[in-house]
Amino acid sequence: MRMVTYGAACSLDGFIAANDGSLDWLHFSRDVQDAMTKYWGTVDTMLMGRKTWEVAVAMGGGGSGGGNGEQSPMSTYVFSRTLESIAQPGVTLVSGDAGEFVRKLKAKKGKGICVMGGGELARSLFDAGVIDEVGLNIHPVLLGAGVPFFRDAGKIKLELAENRTIDGGCVLVTYRVKRRRGRGA
Amino acid sequence: MRMVTYGAACSLDGFIAANDGSLDWLHFSRDVQDAMTKYWGTVDTMLMGRKTWEVAVAMGGGGSGGGNGEQSPMSTYVFSRTLESIAQPGVTLVSGDAGEFVRKLKAKKGKGICVMGGGELARSLFDAGVIDEVGLNIHPVLLGAGVPFFRDAGKIKLELAENRTIDGGCVLVTYRVKRRRGRGA
Repeated sequence: MRMVTYGAACSLDGFIAANDGSLDWLHFSRDVQDAMTKYWGTVDTMLMGRKTWEVAVAMGGGGSGGGNGEQSPMSTYVFSRTLESIAQPGVTLVSGDAGEFVRKLKAKKGKGICVMGGGELARSLFDAGVIDEVGLNIHPVLLGAGVPFFRDAGKIKLELAENRTIDGGCVLVTYRVKRRRGRGA
Repeated sequence: MRMVTYGAACSLDGFIAANDGSLDWLHFSRDVQDAMTKYWGTVDTMLMGRKTWEVAVAMGGGGSGGGNGEQSPMSTYVFSRTLESIAQPGVTLVSGDAGEFVRKLKAKKGKGICVMGGGELARSLFDAGVIDEVGLNIHPVLLGAGVPFFRDAGKIKLELAENRTIDGGCVLVTYRVKRRRGRGA
């Protein structure tokens, strides 16, 4: 069964983006680069909601993969009930039930599956019980407001798999999802 | 200058209490006990808002100190503009500006000062720039909703002072406040 991970860099108060869109709080380092390179080598599929897709397109991305573009072709699935079509190659629009779709996707052959941040898609995937792992790169900053990493997905027990301090006072933590709510439980 | 710390046990999604008040997600261990004993030995003053005070009273506390009662008498200050008086010995009602009061308190002789959770008092103290340290015992659980540890206090830079994994997959982190907003900046 393919592993589905939900991860992001976030502030200590749990935001993955400030309200004004500024990213000056993000700390890039060799440690982050190493962790991301290792991670992207384990996945071949990205899932995102419509809002995250629109941000990716606006930033000139959308379909090119997460970290190593040409070397490793990435399948991208965008979940939306309002978009009518997506023209980019390698990108598939999914308008049906996200949890059901991901459950079937996990059963297919392939590498890991990455759920992109934003929280709304993740909430429905937590609810469907298809997320296996949560990863955070907690930055030493409070943003006060912004886009939250977690949105109410009910109570979910986790198991700490890794905790290490990396460059810049960032805390890299990985958790396995122990209990799932909903149909996946 | 006395050190003012704001700390609590919280879920990975940043709640210090569930909406239903259940505490079954809190993990007690020798590690926690050791850390708390060490911490309570460094403080002699507790600050709390009215809501936290009412919870403390309802739980049979209020004035007896945080962790080691009789051995170390604790001064408690409750900040409220609506309470008219507090009868408990050792507990002082403060109805004026919290930031100004704490700034003066820090300049007096004494041990460390502990700001109790709940977030509303902490927000005004962050805003006044009088909080020096933030500590969290991050538990491996998502609660989905509840009482948040942080409430919007604007952008505040932190410096990681400690990160260690303790029993039960809990992550104990301590941060120094680097930049303060408001009058304390």
